[in-house]
Amino acid sequence: MSFPKFGVITGGLRATTGLLACVGLLAASPAAADEGMWTFDNFPTAKVNAAYRLKLDQKWLDRVQAASVRLTSGCSASLVSKSGLVLTNHHCVVECVQDLSSERTDYVKEGFLTVNQAEERKCPGMQAEVLASIIDLTKDIKAATAGKTGQDFVKARDGAMAAAEQAGCGSDPLFRCQVVSLYRGGQFKLYKYRKYADVRLVFAPEFATAFFGGDPDNFNFPRYNLDIGFLRLYQDNKPVATPRHLTWTARAPVEGEATFVSGNPGSTDRLLTVSQLETLRDLTIPIGQLQRSEIRGRLARFSEEGSEHKRIATDPLFNIENSFKVYFGRQFVLNDKAFVEAKSALEAELKAKVAADAALTAEIGDPWGEIAKAQDAYANTYLRYRQIEGGAVYSSLFDYAETLVRGAQERAKPAAERLPEYAEIRLPLVAKQLLDEKPVDAALEEVYLGFWLSKTREYLTTDDAAVKTLLGRESPERLAARAVKGSKLADPAVRKALWDGGLAAVEASDDPMIQLVLRNDPAARAVRKVWETEVTGPVDRAAERIARAKFAVYGDAVYPDATFTLRLSYGKVAGWTHRGATIPATTNFAGLYERATGAEPFQLAPRWLEAKDKINPETVYNFVTTNDIIGGNSGSPVVSARGEVLGAAFDGNIHSLGGAYGYDGTINRTVVVATSAATEALAKVYGATALVKELTGK
Amino acid sequence: MSFPKFGVITGGLRATTGLLACVGLLAASPAAADEGMWTFDNFPTAKVNAAYRLKLDQKWLDRVQAASVRLTSGCSASLVSKSGLVLTNHHCVVECVQDLSSERTDYVKEGFLTVNQAEERKCPGMQAEVLASIIDLTKDIKAATAGKTGQDFVKARDGAMAAAEQAGCGSDPLFRCQVVSLYRGGQFKLYKYRKYADVRLVFAPEFATAFFGGDPDNFNFPRYNLDIGFLRLYQDNKPVATPRHLTWTARAPVEGEATFVSGNPGSTDRLLTVSQLETLRDLTIPIGQLQRSEIRGRLARFSEEGSEHKRIATDPLFNIENSFKVYFGRQFVLNDKAFVEAKSALEAELKAKVAADAALTAEIGDPWGEIAKAQDAYANTYLRYRQIEGGAVYSSLFDYAETLVRGAQERAKPAAERLPEYAEIRLPLVAKQLLDEKPVDAALEEVYLGFWLSKTREYLTTDDAAVKTLLGRESPERLAARAVKGSKLADPAVRKALWDGGLAAVEASDDPMIQLVLRNDPAARAVRKVWETEVTGPVDRAAERIARAKFAVYGDAVYPDATFTLRLSYGKVAGWTHRGATIPATTNFAGLYERATGAEPFQLAPRWLEAKDKINPETVYNFVTTNDIIGGNSGSPVVSARGEVLGAAFDGNIHSLGGAYGYDGTINRTVVVATSAATEALAKVYGATALVKELTGK
Repeated sequence: MSFPKFGVITGGLRATTGLLACVGLLAASPAAADEGMWTFDNFPTAKVNAAYRLKLDQKWLDRVQAASVRLTSGCSASLVSKSGLVLTNHHCVVECVQDLSSERTDYVKEGFLTVNQAEERKCPGMQAEVLASIIDLTKDIKAATAGKTGQDFVKARDGAMAAAEQAGCGSDPLFRCQVVSLYRGGQFKLYKYRKYADVRLVFAPEFATAFFGGDPDNFNFPRYNLDIGFLRLYQDNKPVATPRHLTWTARAPVEGEATFVSGNPGSTDRLLTVSQLETLRDLTIPIGQLQRSEIRGRLARFSEEGSEHKRIATDPLFNIENSFKVYFGRQFVLNDKAFVEAKSALEAELKAKVAADAALTAEIGDPWGEIAKAQDAYANTYLRYRQIEGGAVYSSLFDYAETLVRGAQERAKPAAERLPEYAEIRLPLVAKQLLDEKPVDAALEEVYLGFWLSKTREYLTTDDAAVKTLLGRESPERLAARAVKGSKLADPAVRKALWDGGLAAVEASDDPMIQLVLRNDPAARAVRKVWETEVTGPVDRAAERIARAKFAVYGDAVYPDATFTLRLSYGKVAGWTHRGATIPATTNFAGLYERATGAEPFQLAPRWLEAKDKINPETVYNFVTTNDIIGGNSGSPVVSARGEVLGAAFDGNIHSLGGAYGYDGTINRTVVVATSAATEALAKVYGATALVKELTGK
Repeated sequence: MSFPKFGVITGGLRATTGLLACVGLLAASPAAADEGMWTFDNFPTAKVNAAYRLKLDQKWLDRVQAASVRLTSGCSASLVSKSGLVLTNHHCVVECVQDLSSERTDYVKEGFLTVNQAEERKCPGMQAEVLASIIDLTKDIKAATAGKTGQDFVKARDGAMAAAEQAGCGSDPLFRCQVVSLYRGGQFKLYKYRKYADVRLVFAPEFATAFFGGDPDNFNFPRYNLDIGFLRLYQDNKPVATPRHLTWTARAPVEGEATFVSGNPGSTDRLLTVSQLETLRDLTIPIGQLQRSEIRGRLARFSEEGSEHKRIATDPLFNIENSFKVYFGRQFVLNDKAFVEAKSALEAELKAKVAADAALTAEIGDPWGEIAKAQDAYANTYLRYRQIEGGAVYSSLFDYAETLVRGAQERAKPAAERLPEYAEIRLPLVAKQLLDEKPVDAALEEVYLGFWLSKTREYLTTDDAAVKTLLGRESPERLAARAVKGSKLADPAVRKALWDGGLAAVEASDDPMIQLVLRNDPAARAVRKVWETEVTGPVDRAAERIARAKFAVYGDAVYPDATFTLRLSYGKVAGWTHRGATIPATTNFAGLYERATGAEPFQLAPRWLEAKDKINPETVYNFVTTNDIIGGNSGSPVVSARGEVLGAAFDGNIHSLGGAYGYDGTINRTVVVATSAATEALAKVYGATALVKELTGK
């Protein structure tokens, strides 16, 4: 799973030095004011009501939950009309916009506008999900793994999780079940979702409007981005009735008012041990950033080669640059000695409390030591695991081939022996993402595959057996060209035939991409086994006991690390003050026009130039809140205490850089595009009469 | 100064994990066996004679010194005939080969062969230098800085150094004087060189032959590279008579025989404090690597756009990939906790010895604390200093413009006020490098300039005053295109006119590159002032006192950090054993043919395919020695005790990764191309009859 859609970070890279004193990130447990990505079944309602003088109740929570949407593409969203209309970010739908575009019609550049439902178009591979219920399965899953270690532990746990999903949803095509590990194995819960596999695009503004300021501003607030997109859920070719939706409002947010972000934060590392953070700092993030920087460079040049290359590379480049900034910020937080010292102190405190309790010590043992030991195995295996099992991450064709090869191999096995991602219950989404028709850009595919092959050789060496098996006597570039040009997997009918044909068809295929994946597979499975035996198994098993220690010492007034499952965070509309400078909470349209230079990425779309005199320059455009969110929350509704949707969260300010590791309410901010701006723009800039009427009733 | 010509590192990136236990890098002072890059006036002759049973004397040292050559392009070399013939590495002459090539004639690909001296061609910008004498000026320079701090300290020191050079060489066009700071300010010595400004290319093999295995193998031994190039020194259009040259030999090196590397190691950081190493680890190297990776990606794609783009990008890409590997290795050594702990222990030992001596304490103070404090200033200013004062590092046009702007401004000032790089005594080389004719590739220039502008905006933010001044309302890409297309600085006559015209001409110029540099200059000078006041000044002043402490405690049986000045290292021909695997000391031609797959970069040049049956497959090709060297030593002669040149050093093995920070004689190795192989190849592959005769007399 990846959460490429969300930029946690805004501001110049230089400004990361401003974070070097951010030990405020590390509130002691339990959580500080406004901190936390809370599960809906453990939201601190009483505390929030007291702090904000509100009367939120279970009914309010149920209503927000029912209107909250998860998109399988890695984003969050919300229902905003009774007819299945969904609000999310532009950057959460831009891949769909790109998929619907062609060399002749570039909706990314021009925007995608519809005047009626007939013009709405299906987004390939996209599935929307609304959380229906949560059931605690902690005891069951733990029972299944009792006494097991290493890969056996991983297999038993994954098998039990898949079996519980099967039991929870069976073959009901309307629901998806997912067992979620919370608190790093401290709890296991069955999340049951109503799913919608037919999601259609309703509206997307121009890329220049949604992402005004581009990568340079993707670190700043004040911001001026119409980072919104509308989708609609369909069933049987008809819009889905969604009576339990949020109330759209065109009113601006009020300074200080309470705000709630309901969405799916992707991943945080707040519960990791110090040795794990050091591995991230010294190995995982640096290697990722070096590779990301190089592929970024390749795409940057690629996109300068002509308008068609620019068109197809715009969204991939945006995603890579976005990730680059996220990890740039994380690296600098982890490089801060004071931060690591504070983390160490918290860890020492917990260890001391465990040590002071003989019974607890007997139960917990030394999971910190076990995890530290596994870090050596991590360092020994990581590059091979990343390159060989990780595969050609950006390539769709490689991804299709891998799904076909592994899917065929795994489906031929009994349930208990399968890789978890190919458990029977999980196949419908796998198949949808494999078989939905979507364009494949061969020129980009060659870049991605060649890059992966060349980095694999670079990191593992020419003389490595796995590298030799991959390349044979070909160069990475030549093999990439041959595999991409010769592959037929861009055709969904070919994929369908191979998927349906199973292992025999796949093994008989002369498709060079299939052959490449088949060739790589034994080495990939071998390193995965080492990884699970020496890294994942020991770490996950130990982490469960750290979670137990935390519950024992701090009670349950704590929230789990983010897992791309539904969470609710609370906070308020507020600017911030840092080093004597005060940043106001809101921007308006006037500021947008002031910032436009006419040069990319500060260039206004023609519609906006024409509409300048029509729109109210005072309209609140973007605003910031104290909510604690992270990548994956992109598109989340920002909800008022009255249940109105005030906007869609799309970013974080510079100080939320450290959000992966902690939260500091004095300066961490969520960046939101206001529904006030969306309403004004839809009406005055885009003339989207029907959409405005559906949203506002007017 | 940069030393891009030398790859310290060989082996796969994965193998860096093999270094994680390399505390052996840190021999306590004084130096361990075979350790050290010794100055010729402090070579441990007695120790070496005893260890290797030799009778080296001053005469031997003088002879080696007289035959050792420094190339201003960042390499080392040696005189190997009485007629000014110079042996160095191919990768030290490839820029010249590239400069002499064109779209029609690609000497990089085809090799550059001459049959007589008339065909030898001048290398633009290249100057060769032979060290004539060393004079100690420590007292004089220290007297000039007594009592000064911050930028005053830097100015006084730099001024005194320039004045001493002026006094030492005056306006003699045959000599160059350079005051060198050794032991990080512990000593200052005047190095006087006989200089040769007319250096011509005699021979270069095909890129595929010199760099067989390319970037993937640039980390490995066994190796199979004919990384040699021949130059000739000219004066008044005639070859220079060089009676004091090394003896060429076609014999193979013998396992265990003593070897001496005489050359110019570029830069080591063995004497840095722990706080300085942490800054390198957490800031300097990571930022450099991220930018290097991105420009690498841009060039990799650029070079795939067609044969001409490939031709012009080959050498730049090689340089960037080479640097990437060097710093990749350094980063991993610095990330090794055991390494930093060992460094800390050594530092603590020295501090304790100082503290135990009241007089010494009074003299030394707390330079470690002062340097640690300056690291905060470093972190605050580094990105601005790097981007704004550092400029568009890869761009020749920017470099020309900067030399013209700064040169004009500085020449208008009195001696005491000038930036040191524009001191009167240093102008001849500045002018040569500015005015020599050499091709400028506009397409690459646009890549470099656009990259620099876009990274500057990214790191400093759009709203930064210096960024606004640089860009105005243009995008980085557009400004880069306009400045490169509009600039006339590729024409040496235009540069000459502006250089001669001085400040008035430069300020009146409408050349867009000149204007860009002029626009950037105030911010660049401002950040340089901050840097010198808060970083360089305090650090250098403190480092002098650490050097004093080391001399006081350990005596002078220590060697200084590398400074791209002449050093002699000793060692022997020897393979190594690591983790149970033994790597033999030599490779031969048979191994080359076995490794050739036919796919780049493992493709043999046509001449080598044709010559297969003619050459002796047992000829020793590459070999390794225990000599302690680093980037800048590329091209250094590897000399036998009898004064024969056994080969040219061109690389280091994987374990020499940590060479910047220490030396471990059990596994650190220098990689050398043997004169045995060069002789055989010149005769049998290239038919270079005249050259073989000049070298061997036969």
